Amino acid sequence: MTDRIEADYLLESPVPAEKAAAILAGEQSSGTFMAVPGETEELKARSAARVERVEDMGPVAGPALPGAGQPDAPHRRARLTLSWPLGNTGTSLPNILATVAGNLFELNCVAGLRLTDLRFPEALVAASPRPAFGVEGTRRLSGVQGRPLIGTIIKPSIGLTARETAAMVAMLCKAGIDFIKDDELQADGAVCPFEDRARAVMAEINAHAERTGKKVMYAFNLTGEVDEMRARHDLVLSLGGTCVMASANSVGLTGLLALRRHAQLPIHLHRNGWGYLSRHPSLGFDFAAWSKLWRLAGADHLHVNGLRNKFCESDESALASARSLMQPLSAPHPARAMPVFSSGQSALQAFGTWAALKTPDLIFAAGGGIMAHPDGPAAGVRSLQDAWAAAMAGLTLEQAAKDSPALAAAVRTYG
Amino acid sequence: MTDRIEADYLLESPVPAEKAAAILAGEQSSGTFMAVPGETEELKARSAARVERVEDMGPVAGPALPGAGQPDAPHRRARLTLSWPLGNTGTSLPNILATVAGNLFELNCVAGLRLTDLRFPEALVAASPRPAFGVEGTRRLSGVQGRPLIGTIIKPSIGLTARETAAMVAMLCKAGIDFIKDDELQADGAVCPFEDRARAVMAEINAHAERTGKKVMYAFNLTGEVDEMRARHDLVLSLGGTCVMASANSVGLTGLLALRRHAQLPIHLHRNGWGYLSRHPSLGFDFAAWSKLWRLAGADHLHVNGLRNKFCESDESALASARSLMQPLSAPHPARAMPVFSSGQSALQAFGTWAALKTPDLIFAAGGGIMAHPDGPAAGVRSLQDAWAAAMAGLTLEQAAKDSPALAAAVRTYG
Repeated sequence: MTDRIEADYLLESPVPAEKAAAILAGEQSSGTFMAVPGETEELKARSAARVERVEDMGPVAGPALPGAGQPDAPHRRARLTLSWPLGNTGTSLPNILATVAGNLFELNCVAGLRLTDLRFPEALVAASPRPAFGVEGTRRLSGVQGRPLIGTIIKPSIGLTARETAAMVAMLCKAGIDFIKDDELQADGAVCPFEDRARAVMAEINAHAERTGKKVMYAFNLTGEVDEMRARHDLVLSLGGTCVMASANSVGLTGLLALRRHAQLPIHLHRNGWGYLSRHPSLGFDFAAWSKLWRLAGADHLHVNGLRNKFCESDESALASARSLMQPLSAPHPARAMPVFSSGQSALQAFGTWAALKTPDLIFAAGGGIMAHPDGPAAGVRSLQDAWAAAMAGLTLEQAAKDSPALAAAVRTYG
Repeated sequence: MTDRIEADYLLESPVPAEKAAAILAGEQSSGTFMAVPGETEELKARSAARVERVEDMGPVAGPALPGAGQPDAPHRRARLTLSWPLGNTGTSLPNILATVAGNLFELNCVAGLRLTDLRFPEALVAASPRPAFGVEGTRRLSGVQGRPLIGTIIKPSIGLTARETAAMVAMLCKAGIDFIKDDELQADGAVCPFEDRARAVMAEINAHAERTGKKVMYAFNLTGEVDEMRARHDLVLSLGGTCVMASANSVGLTGLLALRRHAQLPIHLHRNGWGYLSRHPSLGFDFAAWSKLWRLAGADHLHVNGLRNKFCESDESALASARSLMQPLSAPHPARAMPVFSSGQSALQAFGTWAALKTPDLIFAAGGGIMAHPDGPAAGVRSLQDAWAAAMAGLTLEQAAKDSPALAAAVRTYG
């Protein structure tokens, strides 16, 4: 056990990696561009960042990012691990972010820098709010056991009125859905005010629950100011709702923490804007590193994209993201979050997703995969349920399609 | 006057720009990957994003970012303007961010995307909290008129105790400084708890003010959770302090809004992490676009780097950032924020900064430019004051150095 926070980086630099690592460590702790008298040995011992590991990864063609010094010098790639004592930041997540991902990416010796992973001392994990619900709480509230939650997103993303949204929810409830979410564009605009939407949607969900005993989980996007989020959470709770949603990059760690400290419902965290944090492979964040901070702050569900998605993320990347959410943050406090698969998903991707992850502990959201099913949304939901059951039973798509007309139609439509 | 939010982008794509623009507009409003029945003409009329302008900028060598479809197809660059009706988001800044910079950067047709500017309807600007102090309030509280505030940052960034920090503040007060800030790494760690630091520092600042009548402005880094930030703000206020600081990317728009709604002091906003948002020229944000959201949320001061800085940002980029903060958000509500120059600054850069901007309405922060002055910190501060006075009087550095021993020594040291 250590009391230090460790951060792994992928670095590209014209400067030897050991030297660049020392510059990064100095810049993010007690070092300065110009030596100052206050940087004593005692101060360094208590507060300096430490270079824990440097692993040379060989030469790269040139600087991945412009602006660095020595653009014509040979550049090399390296993996680094830096560490900081918890005494620098305490257990404050916003300040830990400023430490591990602050004024680093624009250093003159940096021609590429990506934060690839984080490890935390148990004292930090224990002191953080962490997911209050996670997989177990989500299953308890949704009543879905032993298989993924089959979910969908209200579309069009924005423009439906509260009444139109509720009508779609009624239809989806009838189709057998487990989970529905607002689009991240839909929060509290004039066309569909939050309160109107929450009341209209929960009326349908509650009516369906009374009829069938099944309470569909709806993630209401309450992204907004702190007081707004708290009030919206309380409204959803009072209406019998079972989930709220926020946009991570809009509310920030401080915003999520304020919601988490108040919330009595699972928090579905949307990563919209993730592209600007991750799209260039030599800049920004790997999902594993980024998501760990949000898990500490209390995210119960986190989006990971999906196989053969409609964005430009590879299958390997989406699966690595999902796996990282299942990796425990510490043995006493695993703080696992539930991965949310979405984007162009249909029954067909269930097989590959199961084969890669071998867990049903996820939310599998499909839009067209449900709504565009030729036999209607109920058959769409059924095709997803049948696909997961078959995959988990070790059947192939072809075998399963023989016994499931819904799945067979899905193969014809989405294959 | 329009009720639409406009966003400008730089796009690189293998898809014709008009088509790519339509995909972006659809994805960020009422469109879907697969047509859904709900997307009626009426819905589109009230909620669809609109492509306002597309300007082809010619071919580029290939995809700047990996992962996009058609990597071998010819790629072109274009400037786009999209717009959204305020009805989609209302005046909620966190939701506006999710709209203008959400799931766009990873679209399959995007080989490069950068949000370069934003324009807001007056209804949005009027409804936003905006800077409460700005240039005028900062001048009133600091007592500095007609020239930049000469500032510095406590170094080493982290590791000094509260008592050691206060000793440095006493020395800087004596040297004639106008403005001091915590480093963004220094918030509330065990080595230098916020309360201890605030009490120790304000004792020195208040004692200096009683002796001289000059109240030095100190930006206390209160970055943390919402309740922590509010309590720290109240402590600083009760101690007679005149400024608080937060890290934008740590607290998020929601965190800053919570602070702004509560604050009775100017908010000094630090942009640490800006590199991961901006370092690749075909990804992320231009400062003009990003900073406008923070100005609406209430930032009084914003960091812009400086000329010949120690990072890899060009002079042109730093100056463009400073200019953008001076650009009014609307005629009735300009919401200007005060640019903060820092990083490797000394008396020498005063001339170029003045020549480019022709305004003294900024904070000019130097570390080594003050502390490493051969005749001591007081001469360092004096060299900066003399440099700005000379620049504003139309003198050259060489002319001014003849009449200012402090400036002459600065030329020898930093030149």
